[in-house]
Amino acid sequence: MRFARDAPSLAEALPGTEVLLVWDFLSDAVREAWHAVDDSLKWVHTASAGVDRLTFPGLLESDVTLTNSRGVFDRPMAEYVLGLVIAMAKDLPGTLAAQARREWRHRETEPVTGRRVVVVGGGPIGRAIAELLGAVGMDVTLVGRREFGDLPRLLPSAEWLVLAAPLTDATRGMLDAETIALLPPTARVINVGRGALVVEPDLVAALQEGRLAGAALDVFATEPLPADSPLWTLPGVIVSPHMSGDLIGWREQLVEVFRDNLARYVAGEPLRNVVDKTLGYVTTGGGT
Amino acid sequence: MRFARDAPSLAEALPGTEVLLVWDFLSDAVREAWHAVDDSLKWVHTASAGVDRLTFPGLLESDVTLTNSRGVFDRPMAEYVLGLVIAMAKDLPGTLAAQARREWRHRETEPVTGRRVVVVGGGPIGRAIAELLGAVGMDVTLVGRREFGDLPRLLPSAEWLVLAAPLTDATRGMLDAETIALLPPTARVINVGRGALVVEPDLVAALQEGRLAGAALDVFATEPLPADSPLWTLPGVIVSPHMSGDLIGWREQLVEVFRDNLARYVAGEPLRNVVDKTLGYVTTGGGT
Repeated sequence: MRFARDAPSLAEALPGTEVLLVWDFLSDAVREAWHAVDDSLKWVHTASAGVDRLTFPGLLESDVTLTNSRGVFDRPMAEYVLGLVIAMAKDLPGTLAAQARREWRHRETEPVTGRRVVVVGGGPIGRAIAELLGAVGMDVTLVGRREFGDLPRLLPSAEWLVLAAPLTDATRGMLDAETIALLPPTARVINVGRGALVVEPDLVAALQEGRLAGAALDVFATEPLPADSPLWTLPGVIVSPHMSGDLIGWREQLVEVFRDNLARYVAGEPLRNVVDKTLGYVTTGGGT
Repeated sequence: MRFARDAPSLAEALPGTEVLLVWDFLSDAVREAWHAVDDSLKWVHTASAGVDRLTFPGLLESDVTLTNSRGVFDRPMAEYVLGLVIAMAKDLPGTLAAQARREWRHRETEPVTGRRVVVVGGGPIGRAIAELLGAVGMDVTLVGRREFGDLPRLLPSAEWLVLAAPLTDATRGMLDAETIALLPPTARVINVGRGALVVEPDLVAALQEGRLAGAALDVFATEPLPADSPLWTLPGVIVSPHMSGDLIGWREQLVEVFRDNLARYVAGEPLRNVVDKTLGYVTTGGGT
């Protein structure tokens, strides 16, 4: 077993390597070191749900099997999204700001029950989010890849838009000025998928101009979010550091997912969570 | 129809008054002006769920019917409590504080699903809270008046304690040093009932000494919460200004509840939401 911390050390380690575990899912090291891969490499596993940094031509065109950590993040992310929805509906940020000033400032708040939400992402994370928002009585529409064409019909009446799709050629930049223009100005956007689902300058402009009521963003085009990003201080915007799915003990859970698949690999059994490399996500059931 | 803004003007208006609508549910004006009541008064309605300011001996011993606004606040308060639970489990206050510093600070968070919560308050508000927390997969125990004796058994394994009981002789000061000592130090307390359910100095001491992990308080012994209260700045404490049930349009809903009951009164039909004056809350079904 060898460890690699960056592209050069990975390129050094790859020749003769049969199994590659990718722990830092935001690193481009695998793509950058791919030239060093030889016929030994059979399987790449990533300790993440998203595989967007691994769907580069070299890996896609190879015979290497790609698996992800499907399942670990579903329910935690659904809880996180629900928490963001209620926190914004009840103006918890305003409450905490008033508390910091020792100010007793009563406000009327919005209901959650019955409100219309569009969840984009037909995978297990999107489904978990849709299920939990539905459990508290929201009016949920889940939009997977096949339903993208429905968005122009769905967005004008959406009070919430949740992005939880994998980052693929079909979803990159899907929330741009054109899509935002379909939403009512009272709508709020939550992104827990990948930063590149959103054209950030378009979102910033819409928020600055009051064409959207707010946003809660856990993922960004560049992470960590640069200190000079206008998103940090825009009114109605919650910025969190890519943590929506990360429960106490999540690293141990990710290790367990890999350990389980490694046992299958060694025993010659079918692996779990095999990514359809043409689609960019797992299409079969199973997963943990 | 006459309006009264304080005890003296109410005392002036009461003689000959048949129906009294109490709009400010935290006012003691009714008690203070009760000496001016004559045989004309038949019915007192309060634009609140709690009737604790109206269960004084003069009104209790009279034949005057007391009704409340049961139903308006149930679901909104349940949403609010769920939002507080998730916000604290996911450390949303820490996220907002880091955001204010433009600081990218990843943290691991707690799950909500499967966590044990004790909800105190067997009325419609407590039931709505228990139902919603159960809908997101929490392990909920609802404790009404009859189950108070179970608390010593339930609290040691509670991760959350939600107070949503009416304020009566049986519940006043129920969360004191003795009750707090039964909770594990990792527990958090949420109070959306009445401030006097809690012995505030005992709660403050427990939070300061790390014998509780946190609290979210929407109601207080004195409201507005005095600027010099230590609660404003205690770590792990969320202070909100008695707003948990107040949706946009809540005043109109309260007027509607009264209007409906007034129509019944005029028609000689039974009123809705009649308070059992010996218990201090509505015991029959119905309500809006």
